[in-house]
Amino acid sequence: MTHLRGKTLLASGFHMPERGTVDELTDALIAIGADGVIQSVRRPDEAGYEAEKRARSAEGNLVTLPTGSFLLPGLVDLHVHAPQYPQLGQALDVPLEVWLHQYTFPLEARYADIAFARRSYGLLVDDLLASGTTTALYFATIHQDASRLLADLCLERGQRALIGKVAMDNPDQCPDYYRDASPEAAIGGTQALIDYIHAHPDNEERLVRPVITPRFIPSCTDAALEGLGALARSCGCHVQTHCSESDWAHGYVLERHGMTDTESLDRFGLLGRRSVLAHANFLTRLDMETIRVRQAAVAHCPVSNAYFANAVFPLKAALEKGLHVGLGTDISGGPIGSMFDAMRGAIMVSRMLETGTDPDLPPEARSRQSNSRVDFRDAFYLATTGGGIALDLPIGRFEPGYQFDALAIDTTAENGTIRLWDDLDRGDAVLQKIVYTASKPNIATVWVSGRPVK
Amino acid sequence: MTHLRGKTLLASGFHMPERGTVDELTDALIAIGADGVIQSVRRPDEAGYEAEKRARSAEGNLVTLPTGSFLLPGLVDLHVHAPQYPQLGQALDVPLEVWLHQYTFPLEARYADIAFARRSYGLLVDDLLASGTTTALYFATIHQDASRLLADLCLERGQRALIGKVAMDNPDQCPDYYRDASPEAAIGGTQALIDYIHAHPDNEERLVRPVITPRFIPSCTDAALEGLGALARSCGCHVQTHCSESDWAHGYVLERHGMTDTESLDRFGLLGRRSVLAHANFLTRLDMETIRVRQAAVAHCPVSNAYFANAVFPLKAALEKGLHVGLGTDISGGPIGSMFDAMRGAIMVSRMLETGTDPDLPPEARSRQSNSRVDFRDAFYLATTGGGIALDLPIGRFEPGYQFDALAIDTTAENGTIRLWDDLDRGDAVLQKIVYTASKPNIATVWVSGRPVK
Ligand SMILES: [Zn+2]
Ligand SMILES: [Zn+2]
Repeated sequence: MTHLRGKTLLASGFHMPERGTVDELTDALIAIGADGVIQSVRRPDEAGYEAEKRARSAEGNLVTLPTGSFLLPGLVDLHVHAPQYPQLGQALDVPLEVWLHQYTFPLEARYADIAFARRSYGLLVDDLLASGTTTALYFATIHQDASRLLADLCLERGQRALIGKVAMDNPDQCPDYYRDASPEAAIGGTQALIDYIHAHPDNEERLVRPVITPRFIPSCTDAALEGLGALARSCGCHVQTHCSESDWAHGYVLERHGMTDTESLDRFGLLGRRSVLAHANFLTRLDMETIRVRQAAVAHCPVSNAYFANAVFPLKAALEKGLHVGLGTDISGGPIGSMFDAMRGAIMVSRMLETGTDPDLPPEARSRQSNSRVDFRDAFYLATTGGGIALDLPIGRFEPGYQFDALAIDTTAENGTIRLWDDLDRGDAVLQKIVYTASKPNIATVWVSGRPVK
Repeated sequence: MTHLRGKTLLASGFHMPERGTVDELTDALIAIGADGVIQSVRRPDEAGYEAEKRARSAEGNLVTLPTGSFLLPGLVDLHVHAPQYPQLGQALDVPLEVWLHQYTFPLEARYADIAFARRSYGLLVDDLLASGTTTALYFATIHQDASRLLADLCLERGQRALIGKVAMDNPDQCPDYYRDASPEAAIGGTQALIDYIHAHPDNEERLVRPVITPRFIPSCTDAALEGLGALARSCGCHVQTHCSESDWAHGYVLERHGMTDTESLDRFGLLGRRSVLAHANFLTRLDMETIRVRQAAVAHCPVSNAYFANAVFPLKAALEKGLHVGLGTDISGGPIGSMFDAMRGAIMVSRMLETGTDPDLPPEARSRQSNSRVDFRDAFYLATTGGGIALDLPIGRFEPGYQFDALAIDTTAENGTIRLWDDLDRGDAVLQKIVYTASKPNIATVWVSGRPVK
């Protein structure tokens, strides 16, 4: 647990500034400023490397990652329902209606109780940090106090977080016991949390940022969507919502607004450079083009989609069109809290989209989505660089000007699950093994902005 | 790490003798004989419970599982390529041909080197035990010495194992450097390993059993398949092979034998009560019926199938037809070594079979496999009771006459990933959370036949 602000780290590891090409760092010197920002990254074959190493060492400012440990950029989880953590891995055997009305809404409603919120949110933030999630984009609840508390906890524990008070005021779609009382309440509560986070005395470095968060179009009135859109324009804040997740949700918006989610969000001014659309499984070609032009991003949630989306997001197509895409766990729509599982899920479902699933059909009829597969490189890119681009934040890679958010993977950890073989695993094969087989005990240290948080 | 032979365990936990119904044990007394076999299971409301508890306690023979720990039956992995462990999580980004000829066959060929085999197999057995796999059905390699060593190691470490020398003698399909020299070599080597395991001085309890293991029809000559079928009839041993895994494999056998894998295996006498067919994705209706009548079993490998099978095994249909089915990791065709991941994968792909994957199709065209989903109960059944039935062994549940193969899940483990909430998680919701969120640090103790092995 070494503080790295003002230090230089000597480490080997991997990052991926460009999709498709793993950049392997071998005994690199990463200089971190007093502000937690990377100042320089030098490799052994660069001029000045040895001199810098000697000088930093002589000062006592050189920190060396042990052999067998590999540095990765911190993982960016683009879709977390913070209040749902207590039901992670629960109630996935029931229909969506039951999941919502017997489990999820009653659970979220409990965050009126600040003691419950403290226990649950505290555990969540600690567990996500311990799993390597250095940045999380959180849906909170409708409650002001509990949402503020989540911001407090992220600042206290040192997690980079983007937090939205959930706006949901449509009486037709939201239960009486868990709903914003009016469009004004939805908009005013959103504004109040923005103000709280911006004015927070411990948030000078803007580690925590506010997010305008209409739950999804069905749960919001048009008045709320309009007000939130106006707010987005005026404050320049991030925006997050669910977009065309399932057949039902996609169809509902077509019915109510006569257009797709993407078109509707765009009309309300909710689709911009800092908008993150969760799921987005049922985008039309035109939707994809609109999202690309607006430079908005998709939070792909592969495991959750197997449970609730009825289809696989066409990730490869979106990437090839140039959309910004990152990954989400969708706690607790997906039963996973680890971005490593999200990466594995993204690879797995991309192959199932490519081949189809029904063995009773001939291969050519089983799927029409040839060339849909992605590999560990794409998954790793999405969880790091892709997440950073989606959020328009300088995170996800080891380059000057980027925040030093990182994890040290100890491939030799006693209770871990990575087994490297010297003569088999070289270069990016090591990264592939880490992506596929790392587990919590392998995550030795986690830093956010140079501060140790695990 | 308590030895439980001759002891009585006071424990809460779960098992599932019948598919669909979780049997919750609360403060049950499980009496284990000196031979590791369960003698009785008594519940608090049964006559004699208190007296037994007092008596066993007075003798010093009562062992109590701590609060927060839950007992599960040991997990049964029906498909493991033992020699492929060094490449777990590697080379999943390359085409099948490359995977086989540049990675898998060269790796398996290395087990001619007994020192390499000792290192790799030792690590595998230890890691699987630590992950809760108390019984494994192993493909070894073509090598006699290394396969014997695997048997030695399982006996030494205490894992219940079924081990086959791989038979592969078809020069058209197997590389020159890694192939049985002749049908006689394939059959003779199989017989030699059977004899070795049966005569092993440390194998009085038959913890390790031999398995007749034609790799799959394409890699065997008809002469080898005939000889192995004859051997199966004469020795009554287990049989394992791959069956109709992919479009290519299924089509190859149709072409060569003019019938499906299942029909061909049946003709060769390789389809019986103790046969386990890995994958079996492309079974016809008639194949399923044949497997049912022969009481053979399917080893469903959901994660591996996403990489190499081009389709999802219709698990629910097979279960409803009454087939014996268990689960496999398929190390290293799947990048997973844990049966918990296999369970999660089975649930996830069953839902993707039900809904289909292609968002560009309307729901009714996206899939024709309605009602294909299974839940955590089915997955847990497959990994325990189902595996035991598939192998025709008294394992997988807590009942008199069954082996005490079990794991203690510590839901409070510091570095673990299970988070229970007293007021949310009751009854089989606890099991659901364990199935979805347990990881290695939560597996506190593992027993095989009453002996602690982790
Ligand atoms: Zn969501
Ligand atoms: Zn296999």
